[in-house]
Amino acid sequence: MTESTEGRPSLEVCLSPALLHLYDVKNSIVVIIDVLRATSTICTALYNGAAKVIPVASVAECVNIGKQLGAITAGERDGKIAEGLEYGNSPFEYPRDFVEGKVLVLTTTNGTKLLHMAKDAIQIVTGSFPNLSAVCDYLVAQGKNVILGCAAWKDRVNMEDTLFAGAVVSRIRDHFNVNCDSALAAQTLYNLAKDDLFGFMQQASHYQRLARYGLEKDIRYCLTPDGANVLPLLRDGELVNAPMC
Amino acid sequence: MTESTEGRPSLEVCLSPALLHLYDVKNSIVVIIDVLRATSTICTALYNGAAKVIPVASVAECVNIGKQLGAITAGERDGKIAEGLEYGNSPFEYPRDFVEGKVLVLTTTNGTKLLHMAKDAIQIVTGSFPNLSAVCDYLVAQGKNVILGCAAWKDRVNMEDTLFAGAVVSRIRDHFNVNCDSALAAQTLYNLAKDDLFGFMQQASHYQRLARYGLEKDIRYCLTPDGANVLPLLRDGELVNAPMC
Repeated sequence: MTESTEGRPSLEVCLSPALLHLYDVKNSIVVIIDVLRATSTICTALYNGAAKVIPVASVAECVNIGKQLGAITAGERDGKIAEGLEYGNSPFEYPRDFVEGKVLVLTTTNGTKLLHMAKDAIQIVTGSFPNLSAVCDYLVAQGKNVILGCAAWKDRVNMEDTLFAGAVVSRIRDHFNVNCDSALAAQTLYNLAKDDLFGFMQQASHYQRLARYGLEKDIRYCLTPDGANVLPLLRDGELVNAPMC
Repeated sequence: MTESTEGRPSLEVCLSPALLHLYDVKNSIVVIIDVLRATSTICTALYNGAAKVIPVASVAECVNIGKQLGAITAGERDGKIAEGLEYGNSPFEYPRDFVEGKVLVLTTTNGTKLLHMAKDAIQIVTGSFPNLSAVCDYLVAQGKNVILGCAAWKDRVNMEDTLFAGAVVSRIRDHFNVNCDSALAAQTLYNLAKDDLFGFMQQASHYQRLARYGLEKDIRYCLTPDGANVLPLLRDGELVNAPMC
């Protein structure tokens, strides 16, 4: 840390929702990161013209809101479409000719939990490799304190969310005051892995889980920058496309 | 993860005490890691002949037990020797001609907290670079599940404890089933930093704090393997030298 960065807003990484209470959420923009696959799917649906994505915690809530709004209901539990819902968590299920103009109600466990925990933030946006540049541009333009919040896996630190946090830190750190070892760790891991994210991820625990379900294609997409470069922004409990700055 | 490792005991890394509830402490050996400087100082005192080290949470407790036992009392708060105590957290305060045969009562915040949280473990030992080999040899010989528990900094993930966990994973992973992204992250960071741990640590937040107090010499010692290669093992609330296996 050099003195010259101290007047800048802070940029921190929170590796698990179970650590979020240690951070000053109220005075920060929080980026919700759930790379495999919730936040990758959310930006993809919005990029492909979905009117909005409503994130909910439970399958029952998903079914109810879906009925009320005549919306698409989606969510998985243990790698399968949850009972009572129509679609899953794969970004490939939401091409433009299916999702355009529609509302998607999505239930996820890790990502939605973190989103509710961060409700007092200045602003909540979602981040993933498919919208990496949009997230970075937005954070730099806002000039506020930032917490990169990894959704993790049942509160356990995971590699894919850490790598995405590292990608953001790597790109925008010069605009911020970064005094956070989690950010240092994430950035270091990303810089080491960036030339072959897919190869690196093959050592990770979630890769093992998803690969068992034959989801390598999803994983490759979810690790590729800027395939759906929009910025999902939370407004009144709904994720909508932010006007780009 | 290849199939062949699945019968082995597990080796996991817990990056913060605030995540310890996610781990199966009861069925594991827990290694308490507080590299700067509590666990480095503990093994150094025992290596130099201290009869035992009694870790306590508060300064008041430290003073009381010190009086009862006629023991050395030690501990810092905010980088200074705490009021009422005689000595600080530096390993260099405990050479053989001072500490041999004596009891050291030590109060630390992060390390002691984790130690109490892990009290149901099969066994608790302390780890740091000065006793890296002793820790590794012990864990391999026991053949039980292991949790490498980072004391962290007020529950926030720190680089030095993560790097030590990574050093252990790197050395002994072939004897265990490692299916833990924190372990993967720690090992990757360690492998990248190992040829210049001191240089790498200069980016870390705790380095900045300690360097302000002129503790570079302490930091160098605390990052050097095997300078005090004994195994502190918790018995009835006291850390004693384990007989080497």
